Amino acid sequence: MAVASEALATTRSNEPPGLAAIEAAARRLAGHAVVTPLLGSRDLDARTGARVLIKPEMLQRTGSFKFRGAFNKMSQLPKGTSVVAFSSGNHAQGVAAAAQLLGLPAAIVMPADAPAIKIANTRSYGSDVVIYDRHREDREKIAARVAAERNATIVRPYDDPDIIAGQGTAGLEIAQQCRANAITPDVVLVPAGGGGLIAGCATALSALMPALKIYSVEPSGFDDTARSLAAHARVANQPGASTICDALMAGTPGELTFAVNDRLLAGGLAVSDAEVQAAMAYAFRTLKLVVEPGGAVALAALLAGKLDIAGRTAVIVCSGGNVDPATFCRALEAAASS
Amino acid sequence: MAVASEALATTRSNEPPGLAAIEAAARRLAGHAVVTPLLGSRDLDARTGARVLIKPEMLQRTGSFKFRGAFNKMSQLPKGTSVVAFSSGNHAQGVAAAAQLLGLPAAIVMPADAPAIKIANTRSYGSDVVIYDRHREDREKIAARVAAERNATIVRPYDDPDIIAGQGTAGLEIAQQCRANAITPDVVLVPAGGGGLIAGCATALSALMPALKIYSVEPSGFDDTARSLAAHARVANQPGASTICDALMAGTPGELTFAVNDRLLAGGLAVSDAEVQAAMAYAFRTLKLVVEPGGAVALAALLAGKLDIAGRTAVIVCSGGNVDPATFCRALEAAASS
Repeated sequence: MAVASEALATTRSNEPPGLAAIEAAARRLAGHAVVTPLLGSRDLDARTGARVLIKPEMLQRTGSFKFRGAFNKMSQLPKGTSVVAFSSGNHAQGVAAAAQLLGLPAAIVMPADAPAIKIANTRSYGSDVVIYDRHREDREKIAARVAAERNATIVRPYDDPDIIAGQGTAGLEIAQQCRANAITPDVVLVPAGGGGLIAGCATALSALMPALKIYSVEPSGFDDTARSLAAHARVANQPGASTICDALMAGTPGELTFAVNDRLLAGGLAVSDAEVQAAMAYAFRTLKLVVEPGGAVALAALLAGKLDIAGRTAVIVCSGGNVDPATFCRALEAAASS
Repeated sequence: MAVASEALATTRSNEPPGLAAIEAAARRLAGHAVVTPLLGSRDLDARTGARVLIKPEMLQRTGSFKFRGAFNKMSQLPKGTSVVAFSSGNHAQGVAAAAQLLGLPAAIVMPADAPAIKIANTRSYGSDVVIYDRHREDREKIAARVAAERNATIVRPYDDPDIIAGQGTAGLEIAQQCRANAITPDVVLVPAGGGGLIAGCATALSALMPALKIYSVEPSGFDDTARSLAAHARVANQPGASTICDALMAGTPGELTFAVNDRLLAGGLAVSDAEVQAAMAYAFRTLKLVVEPGGAVALAALLAGKLDIAGRTAVIVCSGGNVDPATFCRALEAAASS
């Protein structure tokens, strides 16, 4: 078996998943992932003049939606397969937790400046953590080297049909929960990094609720998805930008995810760090949920009025809650003084 | 109509409510209160060697369970009735929000040292707020005076059958949610201040799940319920104690609530401020929920091993999440350095 080619053969197919693949992922996840509730907020309704529902993925196992994709992918790997992932933190935890559950050896390549809570949690699931310098080293090269050394399969963070299908189960649940409560949403806002979550959600939602408009939300300076959607071609972020949204710093949309998103999304929105901090403080004060910066961008877009949703029904995905206390308390302070 | 006697006729009956009154309260609350979910946590299970389920009442309207009792009581008052309440904060918000919904004029008597978030929220619902000095003035006297001036009905925080029945809907939901998921809990832990929440929950739960053991949890130094249960008589807290649990500082168990609790509870537990801070930090880090100090005592008791629950199924009520950022961030810091 040629180690390198086997190690890098991370997808069995380059076709994006359809609804059936997402439904199959939901069956694999049953009993392992949390079916997160769909929460309403009277305050948010009053503030926006709309009906707003929140999909709180910080309540998901590992504190973010990433467990969905990782478990869907990894539960289909042959028993004993060694896995490697590179991630700034939430995919790391998703892969590590899935590896622990499935009994697979795992190594996770993480940047030195990842939030401490994400590194600590990843280690707590029993994975080996390989730290690298995000500014000087190429994480894909490191992952490829580690994968070759360990004869391991790389579990990519978004550009993989099984990962997209797993993340799409969040969208499938939104559709099911809306139907069960006789709610017809008009708009869905979903955070976008590499675009796996929104590609999966858009696949499920557009199949089940074709009239729904789906928007990506990104941090300003990292709005590669919004600009790619406008250009109908994958464009990269300008180098040198910074954001507190550590989970949403992917440089370009994924190839597979963008093919889906270009077809299914209505457009892309961007929010500033200050808007994100205000949303985190709002979630603390009013929703009583812990949201990490990257997880708060859709809420931030809503609160900052980036989209006119008056009189309509909007669903927002809050994608994760893995945030260090210092970053969290800084957001509460910044919001109080602004 | 004699103003003073009418104003102080706050209960129509001195009988504690039964299951039927709680079921009637649930019907009144339908569409107004949130049916909060019952959340599991793999981490909490692993840590305790038990199966643990959380009833997250910080997700309730107004950020605590108190809306349940206030709305149940006030929705039965004649149209246009003016109401007065005295409260350190969560009952204040419950009454203020119910008054706004029902179109009743409301005045709330609050201590000057109540958390700023609780005073601000109470005002935000349109109630008049009357501030008093907790150390020098008698809040019951002030409330009686304000009630007489306004020809108002006092909405007591716990010693009222309709309030107890409203709070009991949280227990009714626990029983229904456990049954729907084929879960048979062995133990329930509920925070206790005046004892209204636990009296209502115990009434519903012991009727529907007679084998269940129900424990109160209080802050050390404010464990009047625990000591009263042991003595089978209402005993007061020693003066001079302090706690960060502003919501649980009632000086003695209520008359009506204790009659219920003495009959139905298995016992009472107490936790230190440090244990409460550790629980708040745990909820932040792992559960991604914002819990205020008083709302975290049951979780604190579990994490501190106050009860041996290995191999059993426990439900804990997290009763509220209205906490100032400074108090919250202090808890995160204290827990990190301990």
